[in-house]
Order: sequence, then C-alpha cells, then structure tokens
Amino acid sequence: MDWQRLLDQAYAHVAPSLGQRGRVADYIPALAQVPAHAFGAALATLDGECHEVGEAGKPFSIQSVSKLFALILALPVQGEALWTRVGKEPSGNPFNSLVQLEYEQGIPRNPFINAGALVVTDILQTQTGGASAAILDLLRTESGNFEVAVDVAVAASEAAEGNRNAALAHFMASCGNLRNPVELVLGEYFRQCALALSCRDLAKAGLLLARHGLRADGTPLLTRSEAKRIQALMMTCGTYDAAGEVAYRLGLPCKSGVGGGLLAILPGVGALATWGPALDEKGNSIAGVDFLDHLTTQSGRSVF
Amino acid sequence: MDWQRLLDQAYAHVAPSLGQRGRVADYIPALAQVPAHAFGAALATLDGECHEVGEAGKPFSIQSVSKLFALILALPVQGEALWTRVGKEPSGNPFNSLVQLEYEQGIPRNPFINAGALVVTDILQTQTGGASAAILDLLRTESGNFEVAVDVAVAASEAAEGNRNAALAHFMASCGNLRNPVELVLGEYFRQCALALSCRDLAKAGLLLARHGLRADGTPLLTRSEAKRIQALMMTCGTYDAAGEVAYRLGLPCKSGVGGGLLAILPGVGALATWGPALDEKGNSIAGVDFLDHLTTQSGRSVF
Amino acid sequence: MDWQRLLDQAYAHVAPSLGQRGRVADYIPALAQVPAHAFGAALATLDGECHEVGEAGKPFSIQSVSKLFALILALPVQGEALWTRVGKEPSGNPFNSLVQLEYEQGIPRNPFINAGALVVTDILQTQTGGASAAILDLLRTESGNFEVAVDVAVAASEAAEGNRNAALAHFMASCGNLRNPVELVLGEYFRQCALALSCRDLAKAGLLLARHGLRADGTPLLTRSEAKRIQALMMTCGTYDAAGEVAYRLGLPCKSGVGGGLLAILPGVGALATWGPALDEKGNSIAGVDFLDHLTTQSGRSVF
Amino acid sequence: MDWQRLLDQAYAHVAPSLGQRGRVADYIPALAQVPAHAFGAALATLDGECHEVGEAGKPFSIQSVSKLFALILALPVQGEALWTRVGKEPSGNPFNSLVQLEYEQGIPRNPFINAGALVVTDILQTQTGGASAAILDLLRTESGNFEVAVDVAVAASEAAEGNRNAALAHFMASCGNLRNPVELVLGEYFRQCALALSCRDLAKAGLLLARHGLRADGTPLLTRSEAKRIQALMMTCGTYDAAGEVAYRLGLPCKSGVGGGLLAILPGVGALATWGPALDEKGNSIAGVDFLDHLTTQSGRSVF
Repeated sequence: MDWQRLLDQAYAHVAPSLGQRGRVADYIPALAQVPAHAFGAALATLDGECHEVGEAGKPFSIQSVSKLFALILALPVQGEALWTRVGKEPSGNPFNSLVQLEYEQGIPRNPFINAGALVVTDILQTQTGGASAAILDLLRTESGNFEVAVDVAVAASEAAEGNRNAALAHFMASCGNLRNPVELVLGEYFRQCALALSCRDLAKAGLLLARHGLRADGTPLLTRSEAKRIQALMMTCGTYDAAGEVAYRLGLPCKSGVGGGLLAILPGVGALATWGPALDEKGNSIAGVDFLDHLTTQSGRSVF
Repeated sequence: MDWQRLLDQAYAHVAPSLGQRGRVADYIPALAQVPAHAFGAALATLDGECHEVGEAGKPFSIQSVSKLFALILALPVQGEALWTRVGKEPSGNPFNSLVQLEYEQGIPRNPFINAGALVVTDILQTQTGGASAAILDLLRTESGNFEVAVDVAVAASEAAEGNRNAALAHFMASCGNLRNPVELVLGEYFRQCALALSCRDLAKAGLLLARHGLRADGTPLLTRSEAKRIQALMMTCGTYDAAGEVAYRLGLPCKSGVGGGLLAILPGVGALATWGPALDEKGNSIAGVDFLDHLTTQSGRSVF
Repeated sequence: MDWQRLLDQAYAHVAPSLGQRGRVADYIPALAQVPAHAFGAALATLDGECHEVGEAGKPFSIQSVSKLFALILALPVQGEALWTRVGKEPSGNPFNSLVQLEYEQGIPRNPFINAGALVVTDILQTQTGGASAAILDLLRTESGNFEVAVDVAVAASEAAEGNRNAALAHFMASCGNLRNPVELVLGEYFRQCALALSCRDLAKAGLLLARHGLRADGTPLLTRSEAKRIQALMMTCGTYDAAGEVAYRLGLPCKSGVGGGLLAILPGVGALATWGPALDEKGNSIAGVDFLDHLTTQSGRSVF
Repeated sequence: MDWQRLLDQAYAHVAPSLGQRGRVADYIPALAQVPAHAFGAALATLDGECHEVGEAGKPFSIQSVSKLFALILALPVQGEALWTRVGKEPSGNPFNSLVQLEYEQGIPRNPFINAGALVVTDILQTQTGGASAAILDLLRTESGNFEVAVDVAVAASEAAEGNRNAALAHFMASCGNLRNPVELVLGEYFRQCALALSCRDLAKAGLLLARHGLRADGTPLLTRSEAKRIQALMMTCGTYDAAGEVAYRLGLPCKSGVGGGLLAILPGVGALATWGPALDEKGNSIAGVDFLDHLTTQSGRSVF
C-alpha cells in the first residue's frame, strides 16, 4: 500500500477546514498560543520507514498521550496488581470528573483519565524514584531523539492552574490511594504532561505497541499479551468520553491529548501520530480524528 | 491453525469449574431452571467449517445478543440518523440503569443497553411493521436453521417481570424518543429477547460480521464500513459495564446476553459463540469469557 | 393583628407583576389554559374567620397539594412503619426524578415528590380501597364544601401525559415497593392530583394542621406529635427542590402544586392558601411565594 | 414551665444507653480519644437562667457548629450577595461530598456542608483578615467566657488529615469560588472547627438567635429577618443529610458537629446545647437527638 500517498490524500482532505472548527485548549497560556490551524502527521512503519505530512517535525505538548507511556512502564513491573488501584472501564464522564471517583471511593475508572493517571504516576514514582524522568527516558530511546524534553514553562503553568488535579489527588489521598506525597505526585504528573514531542517522535515511540511490546532495540518491554491489553484499553478508554465515537469512526486503538496530539496503532502496519490543536468539545483533535477517519476508510485498514 | 484442537483445549480448561462460580439469571423462572454447569461453543469459519464442543447444538435464550441483530437490521436502513436517537458511548452503568437516561434526557448511551435496544426496536418496528419477526427471519436465514423460534414461555415471563423495562420505555416515551406505542415496543422487545438459538446457529449468523457485512448468500446487508462500526460498538459497549475488562482480556468484539450466550468475531477467521449460563456480577457468562480468554491467549489471535 | 389589612397589602404588593414572570404549567392542555395573571388567597383562622383577597373562591387544580392530604390520611393508620417505604429527607432533585429513586433502590426520598406520593397512594389504596375517594371525602368534610370534586378532564389529561409517572411507578414495582397493580395506583394518583379546590376550601382544610391534628368537628385525626411531624416535612420537603429557599424566605411549613396552589400553616393563627398559576423554574407559584414573603415580613410571623 | 425538671427527665431518659450505640468520630486521634458515654446539656433561657445536666461545663470540639457562627458573622456584612457563592438547599448527600459540588460547578449546596463552610470562611476572611479569630471573638463575647480557645492540637490534626477538605477547596478554587489562597482558607477553616466550648458556652452564644439577632449586650448583630432566615437554614440543612429526619423528630432548628455537639433554638424560650460524642451514621449525636426528642415531646415545644 502506498502510505505516503494515502497520508497526502488525507492531509488534502483535512487541510481546507484546519482551525475552522473547535477550540485550542486555553486553560494555560502556553497552550492557548498554539495556532489553531497547525497540523502534522507521521506514520512510522514496522519496516522502518516514516511517512510524514505537514509539521511532522515540530514538537508539541503531548499532554495526556503521556499517560499511555506511564502505563507502558508501570504495568510490566506492577503486573495485574496495578488493577487493584485503578479500573479498566470507560468512564463515560469528562477526563477530570470527581463524581465517579467519589462513587467509586477513590479508585479511578481507568488509567487514561486524570485521576487514573495520577495513580499510575504514583506507582511509577515508587518504582523508579522519578516518574517523569523515566517516561522522558523511554520516549528519548524509542524515538531516537535525545532532544525530547519537558517544556518547563508548560509544566509551571500546569502547576499554577492545577487546582482541579490537586482536588483529584487530595481526594484519592484521603482514600489511601496515593502512596507518595500529594505535592510530589502532582509535580511529576505536571512534568510528564508537559513533555514536548513531534509527530515523528511520537509515531516512532508508538511502534513499541505495533511491535507487540518490543523496544526499538529489539528487547521486550511488554509481553505480547500486555501489548494487546494496553491497546484494548486505548480503544475503550483512550479518547476520554468519546471513546465509543472514535472507535466507531476509526476502528483503531488511540490515545489523545489536549495539546492536540493523537497516537493510533495500525495493526500490522505501524504507529500513526497526528497533531491538530483545535479540539472538539470532548477534548479530542478535530483534524486528527478527521485525518484518521479518511485514512482508515480509504485504506480499508482497521482492527476489524 | 487447528481450531478444533484449540476449542477442545479451551473446553478442557473451563470444564472443571463449570457452574462453580457465578449465578444463573433468575429474574424469570424459565431462565432460572437452566443448569449452571451447561456449556457449549461453536466456531463457524469463513471457509465454511463449524468446530464445536459441548452442547453446541442446544438452543438457549439469546436475550441481549438479539440487540446486535436488531442493530444490524436497523442501521443500514436508518443510516447515521439512527445516532440522533441513541448514542455510541459505553455506559459505565448497569444495562438497565435509569440514571444515565435521565441525565441524558431520554437518549440512551448506546444500542446495547436495554434503553438503547428499546429505541432500536422502535425504529425497526417502524421500518418493518414487525421488529421481532424481522430479527427471527434474519437469524433463520443466516443460520440456515428454520427451526429457530421465539420461546413464547420466556417472552411471556419477560413481560410479566418487565417493570424495569417498562420504566425505561415510559421514560423515553415521556421524552419523545419512542414513536410506536409503549406496550407494542415492549412486546416486540420481549419477543426478540426470547429468541432461542444454539451456539452453532449463533456462530453461523455471526459470520455476517466476519464477512464484513455479506449475508450467507453473498448479498450485502451492511457496507464494509458499517460492519467495522458495529464491531467497534461491540468492543466498546457489547458486554455491559464490563466492556473494558472483556476487551482487556479478549481483545475481541463481543456481545453477551443474560441467558449465558456470548458471540465474538475473530477477524479473518470467523464467528465464535459460547453458552454458559452462570453469570458474573456484571451479567456476563463466566465460562464463556474464560473459554475465549484461553482460546485467544493460546492462538495469539485478537484484533490487536 | 388586622389580618385582612395585611392580606390586602400583600395583594397590592404582588398585583402589579401578576403573570409577568414565570410560566403556567403546560404539560397538559387543561392547565395550560389557566390565565397566568390569576390570583387568590385565603386565610382561615383558628377563631373561625376567613380573610380573602382576589379569586379566593375559584376552584383550581391542587395537583401536588393533594400529596399532603394523602399523607395526613395514611400516616395515622400506617404509623411509623410507613417510613420503611418512603424516606423523610429533602430530595435536592426535581419532583419527578428517577435518578435518586434508582440510587436508593425504589425507596423515594420523601412523600412529597411524585415517587413518594405514588407509594403513599398505594398504601392509602390498600387501607381504604379507594385512595382518591378517601382524600376527596376528607377535603369535603374539612372545607365544609361538598361541591369539591375531581376534575375528570384534568385526570384524563394527566393519564394521557403520564409516561414519566408511569416510569416511576413501574420502577418502584420492579423494586417491590408498590403492592397494588401499577395501573390502579397511577389512576388513583392522577385523580387525586386533579382535585379542584378554591383557596377558601384549601385554607379551611389546612386548619386541621393548625389545630394540631383536630378535624373541623373537633375529633382527632392526627396526634399533636404527628401534626408537628407532618409540618416539619412540609418545611423540609414541601416545595420540591426549592424547600431551602422557601423556608429561608417564609419560615413557614408549605406545600405547593404545579396548578399554582400553595398551602402554608401559620402557627397559632391558621392556614393560608394562595393561588397564582405562573410558576418559577422549580415549579412553585411566583406570586404565592411573593405574597407570603410580604405577609410574613410585615406581620413578623413565622415559626422562628 | 419547669425546665430544670424537664432537662433532668430527658437526661434520665438517655443516661442508660449512653455510649452503647454509634461511634465516636475517629478520623483524628484527638477526637477518637473522647469517651463515647460522655454527656452534657445546657439550656440558656431568654430570661437569663442556665439550666444544666451532666458535663455541661466541659469544653469539647464544636467542629461544624462553628459553621453557624461563621455564617452569623458573614451574612450581615455580605448581605444577600452571599448567596451567589453558596446555595440554600439541603444537600441530600454527606457533608463532604464532591459529587454535588461538581454537578453544581463549584457552588456548594448550602453553608453548612463543608464546601459551603469553606466559602463562608473565605468570605469572612476577606471581610475580617482573620476568620477564625473573628469567630473566636464572637463566641467569647456571647458566651461571656474569655477562656474559650482554639484547641491547637485538634487544629493540627485536622490539617494533617485534611485531604478531603483540601480536595473540596482546590475544586472550588478551580471554579473561581475561593478568593483567598487555598492553604490560607483551609488553615482558617481547620482552626474554627477546632474551637472548644462547653454546652454552657454554646447555649449562651446561641441566645443570639433566640433573641432574634441581638447580642448579649443588646446591640443588634442580625436583623430579625436575618435571624429567622438563619434558623430556617438550620432546620433544612443544619444536620447534614439527616435534616429531614431531625426536623421530623424535633421540629427545631439545629446545628450539629462531629465532635458530638448540637445546638438547638427553642422559640420563645432560649438556646439548648447538648454534647454526646457517639454519632449515628449521618454524623449526628445519638444522645443529643434522643435528649431533644424527649424534651420536645414532654414539653410540647417545637416551632410548629
């Protein structure tokens, strides 16, 4: 299949309406300044190629896409015991909802909502002594780009505007579901959200899952079964409370972030990252989902 | 791959604990009498074979598995307009919850919870003038078994114990989301739930999705895209509020019923039906999920 | 205290804005036709007088005010056992919410929301064999007006538009909290809601509570303690999810109805009924609450 | 009426079962150590007497009873504008629930749940520059006991175990409903909760409301209308999600605290404080409510 041509076509499909619908995340100034019409995409294939369109090399704030890599690191160490502290079910509620957390007594619904990611960060912090550094290290190694870094201005802004996440963290602490100090966990969490990667970097890092758990150097990080399970979670929980809609349209496991990033795994092909900062009301990149919708429809490729 | 051997092994794996955990649905007498240790499974393959273990030929009450076939009939006629009356998101709540329905003003979260299925039945009733008869007709044709029938004793029991579904239906009627008379919709719904099929019948009928929408006679019922989309809904919403857990374990699109049935689609292989009446607390067949977990792990086959 | 003058002043206070804010209940035609600017009030005093302003003699649909009289009849017969089937707490939700009912497994929050009133009607039906007739009989005797009757057109309209109440009733039946057939309970409930009384009739009937439980003929219907307790429920639960606001403004036990009626008990003075069909968004009469606010502020009378 | 005899009788009524039901609050050590069987009560009358039974002179942690005095200070300064930042409706949920707060976008349901009290403390802090000191000053002056003080050990424990309140405060800050720094508001809140008063002190301070807003020295702090309104809030919201039950049993405006304190206003008589540390599941003093139930039943005094 001529993937470059398919990417070009999908890009041509979304280009006319870039920035015309949706809103750029504006809860922190650093994100609000990103141009709404920016767009990039990269497909890293299992056979080592990287097809790109638009601003595929420009770093952006990956935000919640980092939750995926936190889980990739924490799960193989913690094993199934991880699921005593966080669930595996779609939340059906916005990503930062306190409601479900209270009904479920401090056990977040899944690792891809904020509360669940805070628990995974807490676990990873206990495992490594430095959760955000461990994620940074993984992303550098897998992307092969050692320039990947935390955007400290974004991290500082997140902390300054972090009352909602602080509420989640304090609530879980009150339920005994955080083991490290609340302020430490929040700091690590804000730093991992502030990681800046390009589509190219992100797609290459995502190959880990397309290779069923093998790192870029061929060593296993996840078992095949773990890689399958994490992709299942991406499909059922990876795009906030729009997971059903996104699965319906794309038929692919995805993880999105409010920075406009989206990472999808194409089984047997590779990993695809898109960046389009204008978000729909559920917090997913409008251009990213449209691009992938066109690509999967034209290529006939999905997991089904 | 030697599927018969894999089925035999999976059967041997679940056989020792059949009926030892979980509970048979007991809200109506006809279901409560089914032996908890019963088990059957059938794999209908794309190349025309049918591998079977246990009581694969014994008819059971398919209950909510019928919701899948109602959607398969209603969607291609109604098109995307169907989604103005029912959502596509996992519910995160039990299958017969009124809570979400009220918050969302009578638009059920998805077509596989009871409220959503009532809306699909209402749509199908308007389309066909006889919703349960249309589903029966489809299942007979696709399974090739013209003995398939509604178990009228079960249908009558459902109606007698149907206050919860009546509450859902009346509530949606109060929101203007049922077009046919409440009693008529309920009657059609109870009849489709009371359809009795064997694993063999159900697996053969499920081939429709494995064939990307083609009927047994080769004519198209669904487009390839529609077949993909319905499978995505099965994965995110097909097993009540355990969809995340089931997707995590199996990595397959599934639809379950409280009669103990489970239908899964194996991409590129075929359709698999299991029957094990003892249910977990979320209403899914314990033996069925265990059987499929073993089979997918041993075969390495999942959608991911 | 010159109550007639106080009533006149309060009437002069509300008169200029009658019908200018709020909406007349329009879920059934018979209610929608009532003029929004209508108003009447009557104070029946313990010493036998009846002070009136406006259309105090015109019958209107008392709707939920009937819930108070259903409880007055059912409580002394059933005793404290009544509270095993219905709670005593404010609901904090609209009067016809299904949500709370599901969280609390079919035990309505209090007897003054629709679900709770359906349970009280069910209890009264079991006690008397004719719930709405028993309420009618009580209201005729206490008001001394034997013309009081059910408005059958309103009752028929209620039934025709009764899907929401049917949903509540079927849900409670599914929880085992209705003992009579659902359709019978609904019919009795719709009839009691459709009782038509004037402010004069209603105020006289309300004297029962101002007399601490004694009927017009001096015989006890409620003990002093029961009369106190029912007034406490009126204060905490009598005006839907605005009970806190109404108690804050008036400091009086009240019961309201969507027909625009409001019945308040003035301790040591008597019972006050108002009628003003334009409702605020919580379903309470705007003119009625304003009238009582002015009257209690000017007279300095409240329970506190 | 011989109030001393009535108090003695009510004390004799509750004495046999003191400490035999319920649980002492144990979320901080300082409270957990209080003996479950302790009991005291004091009635300060409008004519200057103080009737006492049991340990009426022993200081205890007043906890949420302090919320009443915070409101008494903040309301007359802020006026009705206060109600744009906190509601007046019963919550129907536990005192520290996050759920309602999220549904209602950071506007707490009423000033007597924790979230609402944090907002009132924030307002009082802005008004006075020292919220807890202002409350302390009021309580000293009104009780005439200048030994009244903050128990600093309790305040420190509250802070150490304060994750749940921190979650509430951070959430409201994220909604813009706290104006002072979160940590400052929490500190002031924990200090006011840690105020230690005896029943005698508390009853004397409560006379402010029985005097319709006049301070001990005869100067007005509240208007008559404000005093009425605050008592209405006590009745509908003063005892957490048991307000309906307590109003039903006692027919009096009350405010309770998890330290086992309870303050009730007897209209025309005075103010009554009780202390009994064993709490029911809603967080109210079992002995206190039983004592007041006996007293109001025997005296026939309630607001109704």
